[in-house]
Amino acid sequence: MIAIDWGTSSFRAYLLTADGAIAERRSAPLGVLAVQDGKFAEALESQVGDWLDAGKAPVLMSGMIGSRQGWAEAPYARCPAGVEEIAAGMIEVRWGGSRSGWIAPGLRCRDVQGVPDVMRGEETQILGALEEVSARTAWICLPGTHSKWVRVEMGKIVHFATHMTGEVFGLMKTHSILGRMMANGETNPVAFASGVLRARAPGGVLHHLFGVRTLGLLQDLSEADSASYLSGLLIGHELVALPRLIDAVYLLGAPRLSRLYAEALKAYGVDALMLDPDSAVKGLFKLAQALPRT
Amino acid sequence: MIAIDWGTSSFRAYLLTADGAIAERRSAPLGVLAVQDGKFAEALESQVGDWLDAGKAPVLMSGMIGSRQGWAEAPYARCPAGVEEIAAGMIEVRWGGSRSGWIAPGLRCRDVQGVPDVMRGEETQILGALEEVSARTAWICLPGTHSKWVRVEMGKIVHFATHMTGEVFGLMKTHSILGRMMANGETNPVAFASGVLRARAPGGVLHHLFGVRTLGLLQDLSEADSASYLSGLLIGHELVALPRLIDAVYLLGAPRLSRLYAEALKAYGVDALMLDPDSAVKGLFKLAQALPRT
Repeated sequence: MIAIDWGTSSFRAYLLTADGAIAERRSAPLGVLAVQDGKFAEALESQVGDWLDAGKAPVLMSGMIGSRQGWAEAPYARCPAGVEEIAAGMIEVRWGGSRSGWIAPGLRCRDVQGVPDVMRGEETQILGALEEVSARTAWICLPGTHSKWVRVEMGKIVHFATHMTGEVFGLMKTHSILGRMMANGETNPVAFASGVLRARAPGGVLHHLFGVRTLGLLQDLSEADSASYLSGLLIGHELVALPRLIDAVYLLGAPRLSRLYAEALKAYGVDALMLDPDSAVKGLFKLAQALPRT
Repeated sequence: MIAIDWGTSSFRAYLLTADGAIAERRSAPLGVLAVQDGKFAEALESQVGDWLDAGKAPVLMSGMIGSRQGWAEAPYARCPAGVEEIAAGMIEVRWGGSRSGWIAPGLRCRDVQGVPDVMRGEETQILGALEEVSARTAWICLPGTHSKWVRVEMGKIVHFATHMTGEVFGLMKTHSILGRMMANGETNPVAFASGVLRARAPGGVLHHLFGVRTLGLLQDLSEADSASYLSGLLIGHELVALPRLIDAVYLLGAPRLSRLYAEALKAYGVDALMLDPDSAVKGLFKLAQALPRT
């Protein structure tokens, strides 16, 4: 089969053997936003046309390719959802006469107040990572621009919440008054930890953010350490908002950022377990097994 | 005397009679950032040279003119501080032979964790507004880009906290993914109130922010109402972070924004009392009375 992880900014294709092993992989900066005039079929053919010519099938795609801005909108499946429910929401696209592929739906849920949340792409990563999760119930965190906190029970995603932590960090660093006194560089673990702990103090995040400036103004925080402190502060506020009684969290994301989350969790007495971040391809393989037979 | 409220983006000058009444007022978009090469004396002369020629004195200035980027840095006075302590921190600038003026210092404090906070300009507004505050102890809120929550006891500012609410609102609206589904327009009070109440739900502000997007995606919030909801959400989070047991707050700021804060406070069961927003000139008059005699 052909598994495609097709996000906003990147395109990753995998040719899989019948037992799910990766035979070949390709990637290109050909994310959904880089494809002009809806020419998604052409983009796909340009990358894996030879696999398609060789009759490799089925083709499964997940990520923003299934959004309103993508190839075709695959409506969000609803929580609770596991492999079966997500597979049932896949939609088929056809092109070039006889070619066809399947796009995985995103996932939605509502909290007790009725406010909705959505994901698109992460559900496939989670399905792929679930085989590493031994507990029957677990929290999985996918850190990132919009980090996801996902509650899994018996192989199904029952609920999740998105936090704009990464995007807010980028905005504050690039566009806010805080960025004026902020140098680029490696994360300083001491400044990061100091930000994480500050998040537990009274005052709220809107106040704590101003502290990044005042600590700098009064020489309590150097320009080199300011971004690390801000990062710890925002990740700390993400953790402060978690339900109590969590004692372990699985982290599913880029290793560098996951390590920062693990440090922050440790400061709050929560154990972190790392999952394989390249799990989307495994999730697509699972979905292929559950495809409606035609 | 001449009172000058000289901020980052605006310059406001007042000619006062001996009993503090405003005889004449002038303003110009000649804020600290608009003055080139440190030519503050020239800028002042260009606006009120005739008053100076007529021998009006003393000249008192407050605001960002006393910052590192201003005419001369007036080091922050420390809390607790009233008229006397702030007047004692004023610094003198001289120019053009015999001309001279005084710049009010900003104010600083530290919270129990040792994190500092600062204000510059607001302290003068507060001094001017205090005569309207009948209670011996009070909370004063100055809403804005960086809103200030100020604890006043017996005529002195004993502590304060800055929240970046207004700046974060602007960043989210202009630069974040939320702004893509946000139309400009008047504040819708229903959407605003809905955001204010959302701030009390579990999940934290970083999660609640993403709700602005998902409510829009799923047609629960219109593009026209989205900015009002965001505004309510952020102001709500500012209020959620307040100490409990506040039952009344004085608001000192632009009428439109103060009315929004009053609405939000009401939703949380807190009474709001409006202070005259043009209080800086009164504060400068008070400081002039307390000037060290030469």
